Amino acid sequence: VISKLPQTGTTIFTVMSALAAEVGAINLSQGFPDYDSSPELITLVSKAMQKGYNQYAPMPGLMALREQIAIKTEKLYGAVYNPDTEITVTAGATQAIFTAISAVIHPNDEVIIFEPAYDCYAPAIKLMGGVVKSLELDPPDYRIAWDMVKRLINGKTKMIILNSPHNPTATILSKEDIDELSALIKHQDILILSDEVYEHLIYDGEEHQSMARYPELQQRSFIVSSFGKTFHATGWKMGYCLAPAYLMAEFRKIHQFLVFSVNTPMQVAIAEYLKDENTYLSLPGFFQQKRDYFREGLAGSRFKLLPCAGSYFQSVTYDAITDEKDADYAIRLTKEIGVASIPVSAFYRKGNDKHVLRFCFAKRQETIDKAVDRLLKV
Amino acid sequence: VISKLPQTGTTIFTVMSALAAEVGAINLSQGFPDYDSSPELITLVSKAMQKGYNQYAPMPGLMALREQIAIKTEKLYGAVYNPDTEITVTAGATQAIFTAISAVIHPNDEVIIFEPAYDCYAPAIKLMGGVVKSLELDPPDYRIAWDMVKRLINGKTKMIILNSPHNPTATILSKEDIDELSALIKHQDILILSDEVYEHLIYDGEEHQSMARYPELQQRSFIVSSFGKTFHATGWKMGYCLAPAYLMAEFRKIHQFLVFSVNTPMQVAIAEYLKDENTYLSLPGFFQQKRDYFREGLAGSRFKLLPCAGSYFQSVTYDAITDEKDADYAIRLTKEIGVASIPVSAFYRKGNDKHVLRFCFAKRQETIDKAVDRLLKV
Ligand SMILES: CSCCC(=O)C(=O)O
Ligand SMILES: CSCCC(=O)C(=O)O
Repeated sequence: VISKLPQTGTTIFTVMSALAAEVGAINLSQGFPDYDSSPELITLVSKAMQKGYNQYAPMPGLMALREQIAIKTEKLYGAVYNPDTEITVTAGATQAIFTAISAVIHPNDEVIIFEPAYDCYAPAIKLMGGVVKSLELDPPDYRIAWDMVKRLINGKTKMIILNSPHNPTATILSKEDIDELSALIKHQDILILSDEVYEHLIYDGEEHQSMARYPELQQRSFIVSSFGKTFHATGWKMGYCLAPAYLMAEFRKIHQFLVFSVNTPMQVAIAEYLKDENTYLSLPGFFQQKRDYFREGLAGSRFKLLPCAGSYFQSVTYDAITDEKDADYAIRLTKEIGVASIPVSAFYRKGNDKHVLRFCFAKRQETIDKAVDRLLKV
Repeated sequence: VISKLPQTGTTIFTVMSALAAEVGAINLSQGFPDYDSSPELITLVSKAMQKGYNQYAPMPGLMALREQIAIKTEKLYGAVYNPDTEITVTAGATQAIFTAISAVIHPNDEVIIFEPAYDCYAPAIKLMGGVVKSLELDPPDYRIAWDMVKRLINGKTKMIILNSPHNPTATILSKEDIDELSALIKHQDILILSDEVYEHLIYDGEEHQSMARYPELQQRSFIVSSFGKTFHATGWKMGYCLAPAYLMAEFRKIHQFLVFSVNTPMQVAIAEYLKDENTYLSLPGFFQQKRDYFREGLAGSRFKLLPCAGSYFQSVTYDAITDEKDADYAIRLTKEIGVASIPVSAFYRKGNDKHVLRFCFAKRQETIDKAVDRLLKV
């Protein structure tokens, strides 16, 4: 058969997690916690199953969950979403992103992404016949030069994909970025796909610049979030999408035939769990402690720490150590030192190698200790 | 925004289930059980969560589950699938179907479907720029005239979608169908997508004609099945796809960016549960009893029963009662008699109305009793 994605290999997350397992390395590559999800939340799922919530949920999600999502969104960002027509529960954020792209990208439409970029955006765009236009950002600060974005915009530009807090760079959009973005697309017919899966993982007292805060941006945005990241249960594959009704109608046309609906007992449980806002308001403190602990540990190493304002990823450069490519060095570090990371070149379509590795610090203190011990030996 | 699926409304399942809920009707429309899933299976999920299986499963699925799927498939159909490269666990059969179509259908490729057809096939084909070619089948037997299929085949034909046991018609493919199909595509470069979600729901001692039984067909087939249907837990959204490695490689290129992976604790539980073959070998007896009970109940009614060889659907015609369109009559029956069904015209893209309603009999005896009581009043 002729491949639809001839240039696409296996996602780097699968590659590095498999290597880590194979050689018994500490796995700081793929982003997931190594501690447990909340026992209370687990009990809620068990109870939901026992009560018989085991058949199809409504196609857009359980109303009780959509209502809680609406409450959280209004409380945090002031935006009012109608659970009936503007909120859909998805099988993880990845499914939401794929569905949003499928719903609006026609052949030859152009989509602007910023690289390094999470690796599911470009393949989905290409699958729909769209054209990826990317602006490459550079360490250490990966700042977006908005005048460069302006140059990428033309009559074919259909969408801009944003991601804040950003994976893999751990940067966040600032109020100035929002102003520049708003000015740029004010008179343009451009949609936004805003990947906000790390919305609650933001540090040093900063505020998350959700598209939901800005009515003129919100009105043209698909906003995607993840219960997997928020509730330390990435394997449950639960997420959601917010969008104004005219966009959500198109989203659901695809959603209903792509997956139809999402795990019922887990929706019941999360709807209940979300009622306690501490379940997510406690996250900045929880993860900032881990970030600081990991950074302090590596401070005496030969790795150079890049800034980390959000997400659960810490990137480093290693120019003082070797001039190997990051893809090669990540493999060697996994095999020889026993710590797996993600080479950030994997997030540039052209493989741009800036000698950056990404570590996930959503780990138990013992795991961080062990990983740091090993990395200090380098 | 310009719609990608301008002709597509909300799936009939959502429409009829919502109406049933609104008017308090017995819901025999959307296909799902109203009795409980296995307590043992539920306990296995709870234990998996408690043991900490809450993070990402491997992208193609847990190896333990893929191995059990391989064992079941070999035992039942004699086909050997390599769990490493030929089996992928999906978020329900719908995701598997969407992914298989996405993986191989290029713009202008033609796909042959048989109508009435389950409603997710055509939109997925269209979304990929493919062209739907359909052969319309008629009650009461909905037999496939293979010489008519032959006329639909040309150089652009990329795939044929089969579905046996069939939803909504409850027919099954016979050995003769398989022979005709094999002869027809022997020298053609045509793939098969075989929707076998009701593989275990087959009655009167008949054998399920899985594509996995026939090496020359198996080698060009995506085969899709559903744990939701098999284990009475449609809301868990668990299914899988089997395909030879050259097809599965393309499938996974999409799967990894569409959903990445599937619910971990439920995979752990199903892997364990599948070890006891009675969990699925008992299904024909279990559902045949329900089919017979429902048919006997309706025997004295003014509805005319169509044959039911498999699936958990029983269709009826109602020419003796009214000449209303089935879409209208299904709504009236829901509102006035209090029993919701699916109008089978919804499964023809042109809405061909053969005056057929489909009822789901995967229900408790009391529910069937109540529904039959009401339908006898017509
Ligand atoms: C879907 S696996 C990847 C998880 C993740 O978000 C990451 O590691 O960046
Ligand atoms: C995905 S909801 C529809 C369930 C089903 O298979 C049916 O009712 O035909």
